[in-house]
Amino acid sequence: LAASRPRPREVGVRLGLLPPGPLNAITDVPGVRVGHVSLVEGESVRTGVTALLTHARDPFLEKTPAAAFVLNGFGKMAGLAQVAELGVIETPIALTNTLSVPTAMDALIGWTLDRHPDVMSVNPVVGECNDGYLNDIRGRHVRVEHVLAALEHATGGPVAGGSVGAGVGMSCYGHKGGIGTASRVVADGLTIGALVLANFGRAEELRVGTVDVGRQLAAGARGRQPSPSSLENEPGGRAVQARDAGRRDDPRTGSVIVLIATDAPLDARQLGRVARRGGLGLARTGSPSGHGSGDFILAFSNAEPIPHRPSSTTLTRHVLAEDGPSIDRIFAASVESVEEAVIDALFRAETMVGRDGHVREALPWPIATATRLK
Amino acid sequence: LAASRPRPREVGVRLGLLPPGPLNAITDVPGVRVGHVSLVEGESVRTGVTALLTHARDPFLEKTPAAAFVLNGFGKMAGLAQVAELGVIETPIALTNTLSVPTAMDALIGWTLDRHPDVMSVNPVVGECNDGYLNDIRGRHVRVEHVLAALEHATGGPVAGGSVGAGVGMSCYGHKGGIGTASRVVADGLTIGALVLANFGRAEELRVGTVDVGRQLAAGARGRQPSPSSLENEPGGRAVQARDAGRRDDPRTGSVIVLIATDAPLDARQLGRVARRGGLGLARTGSPSGHGSGDFILAFSNAEPIPHRPSSTTLTRHVLAEDGPSIDRIFAASVESVEEAVIDALFRAETMVGRDGHVREALPWPIATATRLK
Amino acid sequence: LAASRPRPREVGVRLGLLPPGPLNAITDVPGVRVGHVSLVEGESVRTGVTALLTHARDPFLEKTPAAAFVLNGFGKMAGLAQVAELGVIETPIALTNTLSVPTAMDALIGWTLDRHPDVMSVNPVVGECNDGYLNDIRGRHVRVEHVLAALEHATGGPVAGGSVGAGVGMSCYGHKGGIGTASRVVADGLTIGALVLANFGRAEELRVGTVDVGRQLAAGARGRQPSPSSLENEPGGRAVQARDAGRRDDPRTGSVIVLIATDAPLDARQLGRVARRGGLGLARTGSPSGHGSGDFILAFSNAEPIPHRPSSTTLTRHVLAEDGPSIDRIFAASVESVEEAVIDALFRAETMVGRDGHVREALPWPIATATRLK
Amino acid sequence: LAASRPRPREVGVRLGLLPPGPLNAITDVPGVRVGHVSLVEGESVRTGVTALLTHARDPFLEKTPAAAFVLNGFGKMAGLAQVAELGVIETPIALTNTLSVPTAMDALIGWTLDRHPDVMSVNPVVGECNDGYLNDIRGRHVRVEHVLAALEHATGGPVAGGSVGAGVGMSCYGHKGGIGTASRVVADGLTIGALVLANFGRAEELRVGTVDVGRQLAAGARGRQPSPSSLENEPGGRAVQARDAGRRDDPRTGSVIVLIATDAPLDARQLGRVARRGGLGLARTGSPSGHGSGDFILAFSNAEPIPHRPSSTTLTRHVLAEDGPSIDRIFAASVESVEEAVIDALFRAETMVGRDGHVREALPWPIATATRLK
Repeated sequence: LAASRPRPREVGVRLGLLPPGPLNAITDVPGVRVGHVSLVEGESVRTGVTALLTHARDPFLEKTPAAAFVLNGFGKMAGLAQVAELGVIETPIALTNTLSVPTAMDALIGWTLDRHPDVMSVNPVVGECNDGYLNDIRGRHVRVEHVLAALEHATGGPVAGGSVGAGVGMSCYGHKGGIGTASRVVADGLTIGALVLANFGRAEELRVGTVDVGRQLAAGARGRQPSPSSLENEPGGRAVQARDAGRRDDPRTGSVIVLIATDAPLDARQLGRVARRGGLGLARTGSPSGHGSGDFILAFSNAEPIPHRPSSTTLTRHVLAEDGPSIDRIFAASVESVEEAVIDALFRAETMVGRDGHVREALPWPIATATRLK
Repeated sequence: LAASRPRPREVGVRLGLLPPGPLNAITDVPGVRVGHVSLVEGESVRTGVTALLTHARDPFLEKTPAAAFVLNGFGKMAGLAQVAELGVIETPIALTNTLSVPTAMDALIGWTLDRHPDVMSVNPVVGECNDGYLNDIRGRHVRVEHVLAALEHATGGPVAGGSVGAGVGMSCYGHKGGIGTASRVVADGLTIGALVLANFGRAEELRVGTVDVGRQLAAGARGRQPSPSSLENEPGGRAVQARDAGRRDDPRTGSVIVLIATDAPLDARQLGRVARRGGLGLARTGSPSGHGSGDFILAFSNAEPIPHRPSSTTLTRHVLAEDGPSIDRIFAASVESVEEAVIDALFRAETMVGRDGHVREALPWPIATATRLK
Repeated sequence: LAASRPRPREVGVRLGLLPPGPLNAITDVPGVRVGHVSLVEGESVRTGVTALLTHARDPFLEKTPAAAFVLNGFGKMAGLAQVAELGVIETPIALTNTLSVPTAMDALIGWTLDRHPDVMSVNPVVGECNDGYLNDIRGRHVRVEHVLAALEHATGGPVAGGSVGAGVGMSCYGHKGGIGTASRVVADGLTIGALVLANFGRAEELRVGTVDVGRQLAAGARGRQPSPSSLENEPGGRAVQARDAGRRDDPRTGSVIVLIATDAPLDARQLGRVARRGGLGLARTGSPSGHGSGDFILAFSNAEPIPHRPSSTTLTRHVLAEDGPSIDRIFAASVESVEEAVIDALFRAETMVGRDGHVREALPWPIATATRLK
Repeated sequence: LAASRPRPREVGVRLGLLPPGPLNAITDVPGVRVGHVSLVEGESVRTGVTALLTHARDPFLEKTPAAAFVLNGFGKMAGLAQVAELGVIETPIALTNTLSVPTAMDALIGWTLDRHPDVMSVNPVVGECNDGYLNDIRGRHVRVEHVLAALEHATGGPVAGGSVGAGVGMSCYGHKGGIGTASRVVADGLTIGALVLANFGRAEELRVGTVDVGRQLAAGARGRQPSPSSLENEPGGRAVQARDAGRRDDPRTGSVIVLIATDAPLDARQLGRVARRGGLGLARTGSPSGHGSGDFILAFSNAEPIPHRPSSTTLTRHVLAEDGPSIDRIFAASVESVEEAVIDALFRAETMVGRDGHVREALPWPIATATRLK
């Protein structure tokens, strides 16, 4: 799936000012592992699971400092209240479709219980987007074993993108969306990486760096400039999605989940600041964050996990000094990584035919790049 | 289950200044319905489900204004991000044990999908406490049909309390806890009702109104005044729970879920103010809200639901004027209802024997009341 | 001013389970200094300033980890947005009346600029309550030099309480309020101290530990049980205040500012958890936190300040391990300290005659204590 | 001041998809009035005040629904806690320099007291940025009468921009910044307007719509591509500012205050959603929201003020139905208005010489536009 289309930099599209890591992926942050299970069955199952492990050891025994920012809370991401209170994640992170969140939670609970015969409480973190345009989402086709398989497959190295894992059925800016990733290296050798599950935005809004691809495509397709009134009528937009969906007229499609990883030594408060920058990265791609979109950003640092059973009453922690220049570089790197991860998802995702013959076209990037994208 | 022990007012314990409604229950708010399914099987299944419907009509088509306050977020309550964004609940509310949250979510999703063939997105609201001391929580014995049965059983009228529904396996202030409820009527005939799933607090901390029951019981039991050092060693406390639990040494027991209902016309922002008062009601019963406790309060108003499909672009809403005296009465009623609901749970809950022979004794209220409780 | 009335423990009133520090004051936390300037002039100036320094060194060069919780935000406390973002305080904390907040801010700015010829930005932290019932608050009688004098007077050792400093004109639970303080010592020799500016609550609501003093006083005064309808009509309540105030009919009186200090090594997230417990301490004294009350809690730790100019890009920090028992003791100590600080303010405050002949009576504690307070 | 340079649309720069209002200014929202007082005296006073009235009537008697979002809280904006609690503003809004916030608060308090002989409490709302690079900010040259004059001058109609009012001494993206404004009209004739006090961003980051002006200018100036390492060394950036400032080495310069006005009937929760979109508008101009920047967004609706003294216990309110398309148009309009308002500030601001001979150059827009800006 989704191997043949190039990533943005492979066709000369460079976004931002900072250099990417070797893989230009969230796995450039040492220890981060990603796994996908893609479910493409028959004519209407177009969904999947993406799992991410924050570091190479046991996530429950070595909890990962984390914080979330909710840009638009029309979504069902699970586990954030405890993350806000304690400042840590204690499970892998699973991404899937909206109605399969409970299944993914159940899987993460079982995965943790299996490894820890004493544990009676665990906080699964699961993000979701709604793939109901292409996928028979009401069928809830994701099963616990799919989530466990995604965890088992999780690995470092290059991250498959586009229509894979949780991204199989997703749409973005009126085109095929899905999984995207990118990274940045800042001074002192610190790395910031982002992974997005991109399922948001109207076609006309899309900006790729400094090119208004959305408007250009609209103009090309229609032989005219888009007018404001077309906001409700764009080809791949929400209103049309809803109309196409026949009796399934729910406007609550859309959403994006952003995961930001770093090996910079940041505490939960600082990671909350990073998470807010994730929203700025999304903004650069053009969307105003629609009402019906669940836009969640979760940032974590695996520099120094927090032990489940501390050996003393006081922990010695290392945290970035905020009055030096590093924090600004990390903020910039976060914005750029998220921006590029969204574009990466769009570039890599292949055209997909799904439920009820619905088609979501891949972004016609050669047309766009042919004009001004380099 | 739990029918034979009296409620606080039946033995002369009156808490607060405001008068209760006819049932002294959350169901005094017209339209609110509550149902329980209790699972007591063999020697180690001690759990269940409590379901609440916010009004008498379809919760998805007529969404209920709501807001939450997280007093201590060491918990897994689901659905709150969307409640914060949109200010409404669109499903029934289910309460259950910590590890069965996904099952309850799945049940609420299915329940909604079954009623709405078009719906592709729904935000289930589920609260939880950890009943792992008495219950084989790791067995995840709650099934979807249990949740659906609790919904089916939901009715107005008197609300069963103590060791019922989600409360079957809960502990509170070192004694048997569970479900409690209370209500208050304020001027203009408005009603505020609370329902709690009470599973929090150390034995010594308990206050019943103006009586320090916890200290008195401790003094009686030990023939001496409790010393500060006993904070870690009280009979039913967390540390002992953990020790008793043998290999199951997880400190994350405890928690309380508070639901506050009203027919006062409050919008989401105002309900957020009410929810914060729920924490004050809990405080009056003595607990400082322990680290390991997931203390969540959800307040809703069913005075004027919000249509899923509005018929015009502007809604006409009625909201309480905050500069009159009514809001203060509602705040006071919220505090009192929550305080009394916790005590109601303690008074009504029967002694329970559960997993591994663990015993949680009922509050020995006659001893306490014999001294000074009237 | 306010020297002759005893503190609660001096008349045998013991609140909570944990032992107080040597002074039972916020100054039991090493380095904390408090200073008051009381303004009692003519018939209508009844106001003042209370200043607190978080440690013994320069507050700008060594910033103090801190976090706030807003229990009810009908107030004008200044500086909290930056505290939330950066997790530190960088000035002394000043308390004064509502309309003198800008003056106190200006004074803190000037105080900082004077010590730092390079500084062009500083975030003053100022809390306020409304003393308009006794004080000609509209006259804005606090001047910059009063604030500077309070800072200059600031010292460790016993803390004057009752009608001093910012507390001169304050009312609490229908009686004379003002400044109160208390502390607790927990295991490992850690200290938690609270200082309150208490100006909140209705007379009937007052609870002193396990005694419903408010109801007893109301019953004594009227020879009858208070009825719910009297909630709007109690002698010292807000409605009456407003009515008494003649043309000054503003309902926005009330409020309480709570400062919680500790030498426990807590980071900003953890201090936010402590601050939330401050609200629980207030709740134990009886108030449901009225609509018109600005109830703000600010918690700080001076265990390990954060340097303004860090010498390296990474700081080494020591923070309390949250999975040990210490955090629960600190939470309990916070609740108890705040509870007792409010009662301390009530016990120590003397009857005050002020603006337009308004009288606010001291709490008739001997009557109350004569009954059941020991 | 600042009259000779054109606004973006006057030179063909069109940002976004939606049409502006007749003035392309915040005053397109009926009733909104803006006034400036500019202080340019001698060689080092470069500061001022901008005042905004939310509607044409008394702001205290008819309170304006409002909500804020703090994108980066390294700032001193005053009044937000009460706005969050009550969902209203009750004074005009004043903008000025960081160290003059208390003076502006004092002026708003006095302004309110003068109009309301009964009032004893009022919540002034004041935003700030740090103009210390050009202005002798430590001199605190703004006086109460300057704020009152700005209020008196406030009027509808065209809004002066660039180096006026609070914008006199501000810098933005390494060039001269200050006041900017823009508006959008959406379906149903609703208007959204933004006014910014722009003092943020590094030179290289600037994007004007789809043109990376910052990079182009950097490349032009240096004859080479900017490298990541230049992030710390750009000509007008923070680090250099600080160094230039000689002994005044405070890194806390930067900041942006965004005011978003609308006549759409939005309640406080909905306005909070709009405020979050303000951050997305800022992001489109290129900045990742630096650590030292106080980035605050305040959104208000003057469609239906809330009476200070309601005539009944229940208010009838009209609020936008969120499940229709209007809310998305309003979100898009908010993003676009804020984006264009920042660019407007940059286009209109003239080169300014100030303190210690510091110079902040106007954006060399003709060069930029000559390339690709149309």
